[in-house]
Amino acid sequence: MTAGGAKVAIVMGSQSDWPTMKCAADVLDELDVAYETLIVSAHRTPDRMYEFGKGAADQGFQVIVAGAGGAAHLPGMLSALTHLPVLGVPVESKALSGQDSLLSIVQMPAGVPTGTLAIGKAGATNAGLLAAAILALADEALSQRLQDWRAARSAAVGERPVD
Amino acid sequence: MTAGGAKVAIVMGSQSDWPTMKCAADVLDELDVAYETLIVSAHRTPDRMYEFGKGAADQGFQVIVAGAGGAAHLPGMLSALTHLPVLGVPVESKALSGQDSLLSIVQMPAGVPTGTLAIGKAGATNAGLLAAAILALADEALSQRLQDWRAARSAAVGERPVD
Amino acid sequence: MTAGGAKVAIVMGSQSDWPTMKCAADVLDELDVAYETLIVSAHRTPDRMYEFGKGAADQGFQVIVAGAGGAAHLPGMLSALTHLPVLGVPVESKALSGQDSLLSIVQMPAGVPTGTLAIGKAGATNAGLLAAAILALADEALSQRLQDWRAARSAAVGERPVD
Amino acid sequence: MTAGGAKVAIVMGSQSDWPTMKCAADVLDELDVAYETLIVSAHRTPDRMYEFGKGAADQGFQVIVAGAGGAAHLPGMLSALTHLPVLGVPVESKALSGQDSLLSIVQMPAGVPTGTLAIGKAGATNAGLLAAAILALADEALSQRLQDWRAARSAAVGERPVD
Amino acid sequence: MTAGGAKVAIVMGSQSDWPTMKCAADVLDELDVAYETLIVSAHRTPDRMYEFGKGAADQGFQVIVAGAGGAAHLPGMLSALTHLPVLGVPVESKALSGQDSLLSIVQMPAGVPTGTLAIGKAGATNAGLLAAAILALADEALSQRLQDWRAARSAAVGERPVD
Amino acid sequence: MTAGGAKVAIVMGSQSDWPTMKCAADVLDELDVAYETLIVSAHRTPDRMYEFGKGAADQGFQVIVAGAGGAAHLPGMLSALTHLPVLGVPVESKALSGQDSLLSIVQMPAGVPTGTLAIGKAGATNAGLLAAAILALADEALSQRLQDWRAARSAAVGERPVD
Amino acid sequence: MTAGGAKVAIVMGSQSDWPTMKCAADVLDELDVAYETLIVSAHRTPDRMYEFGKGAADQGFQVIVAGAGGAAHLPGMLSALTHLPVLGVPVESKALSGQDSLLSIVQMPAGVPTGTLAIGKAGATNAGLLAAAILALADEALSQRLQDWRAARSAAVGERPVD
Amino acid sequence: MTAGGAKVAIVMGSQSDWPTMKCAADVLDELDVAYETLIVSAHRTPDRMYEFGKGAADQGFQVIVAGAGGAAHLPGMLSALTHLPVLGVPVESKALSGQDSLLSIVQMPAGVPTGTLAIGKAGATNAGLLAAAILALADEALSQRLQDWRAARSAAVGERPVD
Repeated sequence: MTAGGAKVAIVMGSQSDWPTMKCAADVLDELDVAYETLIVSAHRTPDRMYEFGKGAADQGFQVIVAGAGGAAHLPGMLSALTHLPVLGVPVESKALSGQDSLLSIVQMPAGVPTGTLAIGKAGATNAGLLAAAILALADEALSQRLQDWRAARSAAVGERPVD
Repeated sequence: MTAGGAKVAIVMGSQSDWPTMKCAADVLDELDVAYETLIVSAHRTPDRMYEFGKGAADQGFQVIVAGAGGAAHLPGMLSALTHLPVLGVPVESKALSGQDSLLSIVQMPAGVPTGTLAIGKAGATNAGLLAAAILALADEALSQRLQDWRAARSAAVGERPVD
Repeated sequence: MTAGGAKVAIVMGSQSDWPTMKCAADVLDELDVAYETLIVSAHRTPDRMYEFGKGAADQGFQVIVAGAGGAAHLPGMLSALTHLPVLGVPVESKALSGQDSLLSIVQMPAGVPTGTLAIGKAGATNAGLLAAAILALADEALSQRLQDWRAARSAAVGERPVD
Repeated sequence: MTAGGAKVAIVMGSQSDWPTMKCAADVLDELDVAYETLIVSAHRTPDRMYEFGKGAADQGFQVIVAGAGGAAHLPGMLSALTHLPVLGVPVESKALSGQDSLLSIVQMPAGVPTGTLAIGKAGATNAGLLAAAILALADEALSQRLQDWRAARSAAVGERPVD
Repeated sequence: MTAGGAKVAIVMGSQSDWPTMKCAADVLDELDVAYETLIVSAHRTPDRMYEFGKGAADQGFQVIVAGAGGAAHLPGMLSALTHLPVLGVPVESKALSGQDSLLSIVQMPAGVPTGTLAIGKAGATNAGLLAAAILALADEALSQRLQDWRAARSAAVGERPVD
Repeated sequence: MTAGGAKVAIVMGSQSDWPTMKCAADVLDELDVAYETLIVSAHRTPDRMYEFGKGAADQGFQVIVAGAGGAAHLPGMLSALTHLPVLGVPVESKALSGQDSLLSIVQMPAGVPTGTLAIGKAGATNAGLLAAAILALADEALSQRLQDWRAARSAAVGERPVD
Repeated sequence: MTAGGAKVAIVMGSQSDWPTMKCAADVLDELDVAYETLIVSAHRTPDRMYEFGKGAADQGFQVIVAGAGGAAHLPGMLSALTHLPVLGVPVESKALSGQDSLLSIVQMPAGVPTGTLAIGKAGATNAGLLAAAILALADEALSQRLQDWRAARSAAVGERPVD
Repeated sequence: MTAGGAKVAIVMGSQSDWPTMKCAADVLDELDVAYETLIVSAHRTPDRMYEFGKGAADQGFQVIVAGAGGAAHLPGMLSALTHLPVLGVPVESKALSGQDSLLSIVQMPAGVPTGTLAIGKAGATNAGLLAAAILALADEALSQRLQDWRAARSAAVGERPVD
């Protein structure tokens, strides 16, 4: 069981991914969904990644949100190490603007899925939302909060553009 | 409630997407997960899409797997029409090999997530697997079947390549 | 009939598209063509989009100019919802510079056309001009204004570059 | 006035574009819209292109559908030579699968619009449909035929995929 | 005959191309090769382009350096209008960084060549140098100046990088 | 002086480039321009390349047409080794369809130009034509043959497409 | 110590990579360098990968050649698990022709290098050659064999292309 | 023998590559590996490149790290000129962000390998590290320093992201 009973783990390859991945945390805060944030580098801390991935289900996590950039192996490797749903966020990279991150995450071989979101902050927000939608399947109150959140956003769309 | 109590809807933009999307059905069969298959064209049958998307939750579906190619709007539009988790499969297109499908599906704006899988059949298989992983969060027996499926696949990997 | 008898609707996915789409409005102003500007988000306000698309012809619109970025579904969905000519403007996106917007708009399947213009402001200006060219087919005075506008622009091209 | 009073000109850069561009002709046949087909090469017959573009309006054409591949200059040059609406079809090229054709056609500078459709046959069909939609603005019977064509296609979409 | 007997014409689609194309002029200045600079827009001044292209040989030009961005049709159209060698410079475009310019210029069909240089200022410098190399085939003194220019540049390369 | 007084050298990285580069030879045959064909591999025979490049001018060559695929270094290295005009042909590569060849050839740094043609056979034909256009500057008879060749091709363009 | 004292491990993600990776084995055979071939799937057999990577140095391997396709995580993960030099081969993938494989392998973050070769068979051959070049630093006889191999290949390049 | 007995040569195409390539030098400093830095331009100083490449082994170098941008021919040409292992660093280019550099370096033909690292500074750091890993095969102390360096970096990865 996670310390605070968090069902969502937000993991990222490095501290530099946090400005992006914070968007996932923010939207989970808005939806009152508990989560943990962790730095788990596939390349610099492979042992930590193995341990985390193998133990994530037993720790009580239900959904993993994983962000990484460049040759972004973290989401896919976690997908290999756990049977939990893994959602991947391609962090925008310097030279290739996240095209490398996107392809490294989304093009997984048959058998090991990673549900991939958009490049960058929009993707991180959406990973949080999709994690919530998954948890909401067994949590009627969360489902209602999610629907309210969506309705509020729809209602906030102006009728006409303004200068 | 769906006819057979199916919790997964496999929808696609046209009959021509079926050879790809059948891979999602096949793996759900292997995992003994009930599903329905539907053709719902965003562009040719927008009313059907609207009706399906709006009613999917009330019909008893819990996860939607949606495949489309080219300017692939079906997965994202369903994500707009339902609060259920939607998984997108970029079907390989003729001229651009699914690069257009991938970007049309994955690059959703903040607020409306589509969990995107790989281009083509691998992506369809993985959409089925990810749908199963989501359902397995509330279905211990399915979780076990999924873990067994994964373990069997791992065990089937040969030690050395053969000519 | 539209309030001011506008025959062109300039719709966009969000307020953030306005700096781009304003170029369509500006050139229609120059050509003295009435238009309406609307925010219609495919993803956040699908109901509004359905209503707008289905009713556009009855409202008196003759051409729809639609701009969106990223997984840009608005132009194509409007093309599905109305038999009016729809012109699409790929708004420049952050990570992929509008390559995603362009492919999401232009790669429509046979049967549902969207006339697509260039990425960004040039495309928005040109969507306005193409809308005017379409309306000019039944409006001799507008045709003359359009030809004059084009001639003036040609005449304004300097003979030699200056430092 | 064109010989048969055709209001649509379907022009293409070479005979080799015809298998693609024939799709535009076919759909106009289905909609009972008269058209002419012409080979006008920007690069091999620039004089013919110049003459055609400059005279197209006086000949009675109202919409030009232009297809070309590779460094596809025909649609854009015609857009420069006439104030009529020009619709461009990027023909699939050998090495780059029409990515070069698409960018050469769609990325027109502000002031000279080309309404661009999808790469290849789908784009040609859609150029025919968009031409019809434009003409239908002043032709109620054609508008009805177009709406019927669309409705028939929608009705033809099967409910479920079949093996 | 050109006013100053210039054998090289440096033409560009708009004033905004001058900061790039000036590099061609600069290197020709260094090599003491006479040239003229002209704005010739394929899209806004097609008449001027036709006249220039058709008359370039009779005016005494021997090489044409043409720069344009986006759907860059000027170099290829000039290649269609004259039998003189035409060198194309893809000007860096805003959204696509000149990838559209490059493909629009280089992917010419068999029969109508455009010798294409690199995107941006390096390409403009090199178009000037290649023009000089072409003229040097019949101008021994220019050939020597060009060889000296090259040798001087080689000699200027430092042995080791410095902070 | 070359054996047959050939002023054009057609060089290529390997025998496998010949089906492409033969198009350059063919068009030079049609124009009655003498040439030599050579295999000069930048990577397998760097000494041969060095010797050829350094000696090309003294051998009497005036234009070098160089084709290569993948990491295509031959055209650019020859441009570094000779002050003669070098024309590069990006040979279509297996995995990337010549996109690697194109960028490796065209993106030369300021100071060392390679006039680059289209990917594949069209590019090879055009390299031959551009070489002829360069030689024609000092060969009135060749200029006339080139103009006739171009006129004949223009005249051969049919008026209308045929099934 | 490896069974046969092999200093090179050729590992690949699946049996389907063997037709590509066999090229690495073939060239090592030609150079009389011992190697082992292993299937080690990052995604299906992460434990095997972990064990292999952690133990590779102790097993006596000195260089690891790793090939994978799509979201190709094997080379980079092995680079994370061992301090030995790792060479990566991007196997050509179906939809994206190995562009995904290449970016997934080459774009490693600072700290964890993978020396990446070309997409496909050429890359596999070259991975074998680079492994040999590395081993040759401490094996004079191998160095001589490698130099001879290179010289023989250079000598085998024909002077002129033949039909 | 090199002056200071350096076994690694860090070469680059121009002074402008130094801010990138300095990262290779920095990491070799951290690992106490001697190196030389040289500017060797394939295009501006081909003679220097030939001499350096041909003599590198006799000078006592064991690994060459070569960086270049755009049509980046230096790493591949050095691979052609020496049997030593060559590691290539694609320097980020202006218009194409190093995509041209990457393809020009990595897509080498079978027979002439270049071990390619990531675009930009990460790639330069990694080239230094891979060079060290290669040298460490015959230098136990260096191997230990490299393992310590890696362990220290792993240990420095924080557990959780901080704002």
